Amino acid sequence: MSGLEGALAHARARKDEHLAEFRAFVQIPSISTLAAHQEDMHRAAAWLEGQLKALGLPDVRILPTQGHPVVYGASEPVPGAPTVLVYGHYDVQPVDPLNEWESDPFGAEIRGDYIYGRGVSDMKAQILAQIKAMDAVAAQGGIPVNLKYLIEGEEEIGSPHLGAFIEAHKDLLACDVVLNCDGGIHSKDVPAITYSLRGLAYFELEIETAKKDLHSGLFGGSVRNPLHVIAEVVAGLHDGSGKVTVPGFYDKVRPLDEEERELLARLPYSDEHWCEMAGVRALHGEAGYTTVERVGARPTLEANGLWGGFIGEGAKTVLPARAYAKISARLVPDQDARDVKGQLEAYLARVVPADVTWRLHEHSTGPGAVMSRDSIFMESARKSLAEVFGQEPLFKREGGSIPVVGLLQEALGVDSVMLGFELPDDGIHGPNERHYVPNYFRGIETYIRYLYHVAGSAQ
Amino acid sequence: MSGLEGALAHARARKDEHLAEFRAFVQIPSISTLAAHQEDMHRAAAWLEGQLKALGLPDVRILPTQGHPVVYGASEPVPGAPTVLVYGHYDVQPVDPLNEWESDPFGAEIRGDYIYGRGVSDMKAQILAQIKAMDAVAAQGGIPVNLKYLIEGEEEIGSPHLGAFIEAHKDLLACDVVLNCDGGIHSKDVPAITYSLRGLAYFELEIETAKKDLHSGLFGGSVRNPLHVIAEVVAGLHDGSGKVTVPGFYDKVRPLDEEERELLARLPYSDEHWCEMAGVRALHGEAGYTTVERVGARPTLEANGLWGGFIGEGAKTVLPARAYAKISARLVPDQDARDVKGQLEAYLARVVPADVTWRLHEHSTGPGAVMSRDSIFMESARKSLAEVFGQEPLFKREGGSIPVVGLLQEALGVDSVMLGFELPDDGIHGPNERHYVPNYFRGIETYIRYLYHVAGSAQ
Repeated sequence: MSGLEGALAHARARKDEHLAEFRAFVQIPSISTLAAHQEDMHRAAAWLEGQLKALGLPDVRILPTQGHPVVYGASEPVPGAPTVLVYGHYDVQPVDPLNEWESDPFGAEIRGDYIYGRGVSDMKAQILAQIKAMDAVAAQGGIPVNLKYLIEGEEEIGSPHLGAFIEAHKDLLACDVVLNCDGGIHSKDVPAITYSLRGLAYFELEIETAKKDLHSGLFGGSVRNPLHVIAEVVAGLHDGSGKVTVPGFYDKVRPLDEEERELLARLPYSDEHWCEMAGVRALHGEAGYTTVERVGARPTLEANGLWGGFIGEGAKTVLPARAYAKISARLVPDQDARDVKGQLEAYLARVVPADVTWRLHEHSTGPGAVMSRDSIFMESARKSLAEVFGQEPLFKREGGSIPVVGLLQEALGVDSVMLGFELPDDGIHGPNERHYVPNYFRGIETYIRYLYHVAGSAQ
Repeated sequence: MSGLEGALAHARARKDEHLAEFRAFVQIPSISTLAAHQEDMHRAAAWLEGQLKALGLPDVRILPTQGHPVVYGASEPVPGAPTVLVYGHYDVQPVDPLNEWESDPFGAEIRGDYIYGRGVSDMKAQILAQIKAMDAVAAQGGIPVNLKYLIEGEEEIGSPHLGAFIEAHKDLLACDVVLNCDGGIHSKDVPAITYSLRGLAYFELEIETAKKDLHSGLFGGSVRNPLHVIAEVVAGLHDGSGKVTVPGFYDKVRPLDEEERELLARLPYSDEHWCEMAGVRALHGEAGYTTVERVGARPTLEANGLWGGFIGEGAKTVLPARAYAKISARLVPDQDARDVKGQLEAYLARVVPADVTWRLHEHSTGPGAVMSRDSIFMESARKSLAEVFGQEPLFKREGGSIPVVGLLQEALGVDSVMLGFELPDDGIHGPNERHYVPNYFRGIETYIRYLYHVAGSAQ
């Protein structure tokens, strides 16, 4: 039996154990954005530290950042072999609206072929599948490449401290390629490789019209209502054709050439299926582009949250003093988050009346990225997916943002290979997030094959 | 010593006791809109029942409604004397935003000349001052009119069940005039009588674009964002000159004639002082009208609450499925709340895209009212205020809404005399609501004088 076959057999014999550990990982509510889960974040990091130590890695550490810590690991050096840096994150999104969940978000309940819970698909399944794959490889007499782990705890809040961390640990993280497990495939049985990601710039806007809340009867009709001001601001971000109106927003957007438009047009997407996945009656977006182009290659600027005034049950006749919006842009190459902030500020200065105070706070930013489709690392990924799924993977652009891809490109000069098994209809970030359990096991096999292909290609 | 003088002396000798009972009343958190305060509502009703019984009224009852109960009372009949129905409410507004209060909203803390707490000014001070006044009158050998009490528990949620209650108890409530204590004066030492009120129509709007929340990266750019749809709806309610754009909204608004415009122009309001009270840098409202006219004689249509998406701390990249707004209109004669609902529905049908679901729920409605300024009841109020404050009261239009005034007018055919001591800068409905303590005592004296003047005028 070859190392590859031995590793596959090793993994196949341990499915129950791998699923039980997956559930245990999901049951740690590692919500990075909520201070109340600080302790859970530490538990999740320690749990992963234990997993990496169990692989037999000689160097496993929890490294501090200004925020949540990074879990780091490195295998026994193999001189001459390529160095693969595995990237993942152990944090998850908040769970609200809680009342829309059909089971405990941290219960990791299994119903049919799916496991349900916050973070199952984004991305506890992926990072754990990769670790379990390495466990099988290690059992064959050692890992044949230089393997490193960088597992952060702040991806879901935009990785605010990861840039500084990478800068401070360039030598520790030096590698030939990043294996980024935070990706997805096209549909249950159709593999795919993401070669492009959108960036993210996330802001919070505060509008203040008065010092205190007022009575809408006594003052209504005589003073500004901040809810109306913020409604004007948000409504004014787009024109009737779905284009962002903020001046300069599209200036640095790299146009799609005809070749890539043709490639993207070949993806087996249908607007009908997209509607179904999204749970909407009709699609809507920037005029002049297909859905695949809008999501993968065009930027957005939109509200993720909006609030102000009385939002409880019943009726309260208040004229509030303040209103708020969370506004984020999905960026594409070569947009710069700093430019976008400046454009938004100029827009606000023009749209918000002079007697109203506004404040724009930046939560996080990260650039978009497009990766080469021709490297041995990308080729190894293609081959592994084709073998496990029995069909060639699609190459796709991803609408989501994974800031670390851009950060690692800038700091270490390396591309990332996106290899993960999330599905578009897993409902990540929403209620009832789920993961297709058979693909957790296919993931383990894919990561095993990937390692041997990378080791083999490099010889 | 006359009855009047005896009653005044009786009240003056009991100031400490009257203040202590006022504080005890405020300390019951009778928030009608929140289910969690159901028990407190019962406590407040029972507390008032005890107060009315202590007056020696032979008939005191807590009468059920479909919602919170009414506290009713009637004095010993005096044949031939006028019947005065005292109206008040024992419920209060919610307290949020709680973090902006400088002391416990139900602590009834006294700082300087003010007492602070939710409901102190709206309207526990007033209804209790009226009861304490009757206590002093009763001690002079009996109450010389037919006195009745109607103290409801749903004013702050728009009195949804009061109309049915009044219809069902017309005989019990029959009277010659309503003494409505839920009013205010112009400033600390300047008395005023409100002769006109705006009505209220309060709605809740839900916008639904998808079945579930989506990931803003995966779907952003391809589906509608309900926050943008609701922003368009709210922003579109007004044009640049502050006019409501909803077709038909102004059709039935009774225009102000030149005589009344002149009368209102004589009120000692200044825009500067109004800005200061409101805590704003500039005023804003419908073009073509003064501030006094905008607040007292012109209708509004505006949002009191707006929410959707992620509104917690930090960043969540969600594309929500739903957005909500609380929208209310302040109505003036002869607008009809049903017409306004229809107009709003027609507006929504036009503005909301066809692939988006909207629902408009009605919380409560009540018409506006204008009262005669020439009756003996109004004259008694004028005289009482002039005597207590040492100057003639102003006659003013009020921007707030007191549905019961219109309801009683319709059901019993009687006018209401508005006689209360709330101040425009008491911060009712907002944090740090306060009441000017000296006017609590002036209130008691005014209500004593009012009773004797009404009894005397009718002889």
